[in-house]
Amino acid sequence: MTIGEGKRIAVLSPVAWRTPPRAYGAWETVASNITEGLVRRGWDVTLFATTESITKAKLSSVVPCGYAEDDSQDPKVSECMHISELFERADEFDLIHNNFDFLPLTYSRLISTPMLTTIHGFSSEAIMPVFHKYSDSYYASISDSDRAEGLNYVGTVYNGIDLSDFVFSETPGEALVAFGRIHPDKGFHLAIDVAKRSGRKLIIAGIVQDQRYFDEDIMPHVDGKNIKFIGPVGPPERDDLLKQAYAVLHLNTIPERFGLVMAESMAAGVPVIAMDLGSCREVIADGETGFLVDDVAGAVEAVGKIDTISRASCRRRVEEKFSLDVMAANYEKVYQEIFRREALKKVMSGV
Amino acid sequence: MTIGEGKRIAVLSPVAWRTPPRAYGAWETVASNITEGLVRRGWDVTLFATTESITKAKLSSVVPCGYAEDDSQDPKVSECMHISELFERADEFDLIHNNFDFLPLTYSRLISTPMLTTIHGFSSEAIMPVFHKYSDSYYASISDSDRAEGLNYVGTVYNGIDLSDFVFSETPGEALVAFGRIHPDKGFHLAIDVAKRSGRKLIIAGIVQDQRYFDEDIMPHVDGKNIKFIGPVGPPERDDLLKQAYAVLHLNTIPERFGLVMAESMAAGVPVIAMDLGSCREVIADGETGFLVDDVAGAVEAVGKIDTISRASCRRRVEEKFSLDVMAANYEKVYQEIFRREALKKVMSGV
Repeated sequence: MTIGEGKRIAVLSPVAWRTPPRAYGAWETVASNITEGLVRRGWDVTLFATTESITKAKLSSVVPCGYAEDDSQDPKVSECMHISELFERADEFDLIHNNFDFLPLTYSRLISTPMLTTIHGFSSEAIMPVFHKYSDSYYASISDSDRAEGLNYVGTVYNGIDLSDFVFSETPGEALVAFGRIHPDKGFHLAIDVAKRSGRKLIIAGIVQDQRYFDEDIMPHVDGKNIKFIGPVGPPERDDLLKQAYAVLHLNTIPERFGLVMAESMAAGVPVIAMDLGSCREVIADGETGFLVDDVAGAVEAVGKIDTISRASCRRRVEEKFSLDVMAANYEKVYQEIFRREALKKVMSGV
Repeated sequence: MTIGEGKRIAVLSPVAWRTPPRAYGAWETVASNITEGLVRRGWDVTLFATTESITKAKLSSVVPCGYAEDDSQDPKVSECMHISELFERADEFDLIHNNFDFLPLTYSRLISTPMLTTIHGFSSEAIMPVFHKYSDSYYASISDSDRAEGLNYVGTVYNGIDLSDFVFSETPGEALVAFGRIHPDKGFHLAIDVAKRSGRKLIIAGIVQDQRYFDEDIMPHVDGKNIKFIGPVGPPERDDLLKQAYAVLHLNTIPERFGLVMAESMAAGVPVIAMDLGSCREVIADGETGFLVDDVAGAVEAVGKIDTISRASCRRRVEEKFSLDVMAANYEKVYQEIFRREALKKVMSGV
C-alpha cells in the first residue's frame, strides 16, 4: 500500500503556458514537477492545466493552450474558467494543491475540500490582503526565509529539479558563470565586478528581463573575451555552460525566494558564491557547497578559496535536498499534516 | 405586505467606481438605480459596492473606493475580494442580482442561492464562453434585441432613469443635438452630415472615447457656430443642452444595446432620430416619439417632420417604460419568476 492510497489530489497549475512549459514558465515547471513526482510515488493525481499539457497524471483542462502563447484568449476568462472547473469538481478530491497564485483562494471557502497553496512569490504588496484573508487555508513556502508575517504556513517545501537534466562534472572549468533572468535583482553587474577583480573570465547567460539594465550596466562590459554574453540557455546549452564553470556567481541584490539557479549549478557539481540574502543560506551549505558573502570584496575572496569545495558535495546536496523525489516526499508530509488537521477539525466539530 | 416581504436580495455592483458614480460609470449607475428602486418598493436589499457608496439599502463592502479612482489598488485583487465576500455570505440571501459582468458566474455553481445576471454588454467575443457555460443560471437582457443566441434569458428589463433629473420642456429649441461617448459607433460624423444637409446648427457633447476619431472626423467640422463641441455634460449642463434641442440625433452605426441617451432626450421632451439598429426601435416609438431611419438621407427627411411629434408623448413614454420605478417593478417580475422556477426545481428534485 503506497502512502497516497485512497487519497485523490488535484494539482492546479497556471494556464499562461503549457505544463511543463516549452521554454519559460517557472510556476508551470514546478506544478509539473510536483505532479510527476507524486504520480511516481503512487498518488492519484489530477492535473488541472492547459489541454496540450503533458503528464502521467489524469489531465483536466478547459483552456486549450497557454494564453501567453495565444493572442485570441482573454487571460481573465481563461483563468476563471480554469479555476472554477476545478472548484466545481472539488468533492472528487481530498486535497487541492494550488500553484496558481491568489485568485483560487477567493473560491476556497465555498467548498469543503481543503486547499494547500504554494506561494511561489508575491508579485506585489497589493495582493497581500488576499493571502491574509484566507490564512485559515493552508500555505507552503518555498524557503523558510520567504515567509510573509501572519500567514498560516504548514511547511516549507524546496523546489526540486530533475537531476537527470544535469551532467555532473568532477573537473572544474576555468570561467566564472552567472545565469538567470537578466535583471538588477540578480546582480549581474556585481558579477562583472567580481570577475574583473578576480582576473577570471565571466560568462553571462539568460533572458533579458530588464533591457535598460542590460544595455547600460551589462553590455558595455561585454567584450566577447573576458566578459561574454551568450543569451538564453535551454537544458543542453546549460550543461555546456556549467562544464566551463569554475564557480557560479549568484550575487542577488534582494532576498532570494528560492533560487533555482543555485540548485542547478550544484547539480552539475559547480560551487556557488551567493549573497547572504533570503533563501541563499538554505540552498547553499556555506563552506561546503559554496560561500555566502555580503559584498563584492567577499565574493572576490570566495573565488580565491573555491578549490576547497568538494564538487561531489555540491551534487550530493541537490540529491538530498532539491531532487524531484525529495520535493514530492516533502509535499507528502505536508499533505499528511493537512489530513491530520482536517480530521481533528471534524472531531472537534463533532462531525 | 409588500411584494418583496421576507425575500433578501443582494445586488452586486462593480467596484471600478463609487455606486452611484461621481461622473462616468454606467454599470454602477444602473446597479444603484436598481438598488434604490427596490428599496423604495419595500424589498430587503444589500448592496455590495465600494465602501464610500451611497445607498438606502444595507451596504456591504471590502473595497474602500473605486480602483479606477485609486492607483494603489490591483483591480484584479479588488474584484475577486469583492465578489468572494458576497458569495461567502450567499446563504444570507434569497437571490443574488449580479451587475458585475462574467467573473461572478464562475463562483455561482459553488453556492445554492440563485443568481440573476443582467448582461449590460459583451465587451468581447472572448468572454462569451463564460456566459454559455453558466447558461443554467438566470440572465436578464437590457433590450430584446441585445440577446446572444443560446443563453437562458428570464426576461428583458430596460434601464430606468431618474425622471427628476430631467426638466420637461414643451417648447422645442433650434439646434440638433448629439451627445454620449464620442466614438465612431455612435455616429457623430453622420450627425454632422445631417446637420449640414438640414441647414440646422448641431451641438455635440460627451467624453472623447476615441481620440483619433474625434481629431480626424469631428473636430475639422467644428466651427463653434454651426457645429459646436461643448465637451462632457453632467446633469445640470445636460438640461441646458436639451433645452436647446430641436431633436436629438442618435445615428449609431452598430446595433444599440439599450441607448440611455434616447431615454434621457425623451425625458426632456426632445424627439429622437435614431438608426434602426438594435434596441432603438424598442426605446423610440417610431413616428410618435421620434423616427427610426436607415441612413443620412432618412435622417434629413426626419428632421423635416419633427414638428409632427408631440413632446409630451416623448416624456410620457419614458414615464411609462424607462423610469426607475418601472425598472424596479420589472425586475420584481423577473425575481418572482426565478423564485417560481426555483420552487419548482425543489419540488421536482423531491426536496
